[in-house]
Amino acid sequence: MKYYAGIDIGGTNIKTGIVDELGNIISEDSVPTGADRPQEVVLQDIISSVQESIAKAQVTPSAVGMGSPGLIDSVNGIVKYNNNLGWHDFAIGPEMSRALGIYSTLENDADAAALGEVVAGCAKGANSAMIITLGTGVGSGYVVDEKIVRGCEFGHMVIHYGGRPCTCGRKGCFEAYCSATGLINMTREAIAENPGGIMAKIADVEGTVSGHTVFDAAQEGDENAVNVIDTYTSYLACGLANLINGLQPEVIGIGGGIGKQGERLLAPLRLKVQHEIYPGIPLPRIVSCTLGYKAGLIGAAMAAK
Amino acid sequence: MKYYAGIDIGGTNIKTGIVDELGNIISEDSVPTGADRPQEVVLQDIISSVQESIAKAQVTPSAVGMGSPGLIDSVNGIVKYNNNLGWHDFAIGPEMSRALGIYSTLENDADAAALGEVVAGCAKGANSAMIITLGTGVGSGYVVDEKIVRGCEFGHMVIHYGGRPCTCGRKGCFEAYCSATGLINMTREAIAENPGGIMAKIADVEGTVSGHTVFDAAQEGDENAVNVIDTYTSYLACGLANLINGLQPEVIGIGGGIGKQGERLLAPLRLKVQHEIYPGIPLPRIVSCTLGYKAGLIGAAMAAK
Repeated sequence: MKYYAGIDIGGTNIKTGIVDELGNIISEDSVPTGADRPQEVVLQDIISSVQESIAKAQVTPSAVGMGSPGLIDSVNGIVKYNNNLGWHDFAIGPEMSRALGIYSTLENDADAAALGEVVAGCAKGANSAMIITLGTGVGSGYVVDEKIVRGCEFGHMVIHYGGRPCTCGRKGCFEAYCSATGLINMTREAIAENPGGIMAKIADVEGTVSGHTVFDAAQEGDENAVNVIDTYTSYLACGLANLINGLQPEVIGIGGGIGKQGERLLAPLRLKVQHEIYPGIPLPRIVSCTLGYKAGLIGAAMAAK
Repeated sequence: MKYYAGIDIGGTNIKTGIVDELGNIISEDSVPTGADRPQEVVLQDIISSVQESIAKAQVTPSAVGMGSPGLIDSVNGIVKYNNNLGWHDFAIGPEMSRALGIYSTLENDADAAALGEVVAGCAKGANSAMIITLGTGVGSGYVVDEKIVRGCEFGHMVIHYGGRPCTCGRKGCFEAYCSATGLINMTREAIAENPGGIMAKIADVEGTVSGHTVFDAAQEGDENAVNVIDTYTSYLACGLANLINGLQPEVIGIGGGIGKQGERLLAPLRLKVQHEIYPGIPLPRIVSCTLGYKAGLIGAAMAAK
């Protein structure tokens, strides 16, 4: 059995671990990112955390894989730019190789998480899988034959020409409608139109509007909430059908906060997607992601395999 | 030097040829498809045409590659279904291997043409290229490291939720706006609004509205034609920016009837695409396809390499 070190770099915490060649986590460690410090100082903490993970696992990793947000140069192991981390042209790949004395890889974090779900999660064994993360934004990662198709990022695919403004400057992006933020915006608009309704009451009790407000209200029989979910799943089905028509993945895994809704989201979504895809193209399995935060760690390690 | 036989299957004619390993056509032959005949009879004509190409070239091909429209099972060399050819579960790959005594491959015809443009045409030497064909429909083929990414078909990507009805049953597809048919529809609508204008006169003289009516009128200074081109290139830029944001190809090659407009189309298009793509993603080279019908023949042969 071979083992690989994985590093999942996040804005708040950096998780490290040792993963066996089948995708099982053998040991884990975590350090606060402390992104306000110089990148060289953060690097020392990451190295210490990996060494801690190695010590816990009592095995020697064959290689180390990293997943990082931002603009990534995977070929040279460089984080070109990330705003949240404050990193700029950071050659973390070569640095990590030198520190640990092993081969290193660097992938985009969403790509790494997608690989994790294919190796050990919701898309295990699939020839091709698209992992769509519905969180603050819409992330996507595409994996074919257990290899990451790099740079596959469909959050900023316009699905409604001239539609809702997106943070990227375009109008009508998939992300503007289908991120958790998009759903929360739709929910807020529905509450404003009907301030005495069930959604408004739930938001009052919880002190905020979240991605599950509308699902909870629908469960209580709120017609307006049902309508919001109908609109939301129609946009989501539109974006997914674009990707299915375009790339024909065998599995679509839905992750992020909204993905946790499970069948409350997936059951109506599958019906709509089926209706939208091109005749002759088989409906992919549409499932929830299962690994949570572990996907990024497992995928980063497996990319080094 | 190694040589490969190529077969480009079309609804009207089937072209065969011998192509060297660099993508140069050594010999060519063509037969009418005669799609009203049984598929086994058509097959005999194709085999005879390939043998004619081989005799003309006086070389022995190492393998034979085919490109066919329709729903293709590349793994097993089967045309699952094609309406225009009347083919249904036709195992043309194994049949061709048996007849010629060499290894065979079968690809979708748009995919094969994309590979042709990468090996010997507008995207020669590119690490990744997306070839977009603007004809009756919108076809797409994606090639990475001189390998076809199979099933990559973005004509039926919705870019305008709830927009123009598409032949596929969805509303607002890329194809509904950006095919030659889409442009002709926009041109007809503009003529109906302004029946005394330059576009109407050109259509009168030519006896029809075509994909170049609007470009010819714009050249003569017709403000309405300039507006139609502006709308058309905005939709086209929207669809291309989706693909650039999503897949980051190094080159985008524009083919089909509309692609022949060259810089009249490409110059305004590049400006709009640049404005639409995600910050940090480099603008791909956006060029016209150069091989015409030869792309399919060369690409089919090169897929067998």
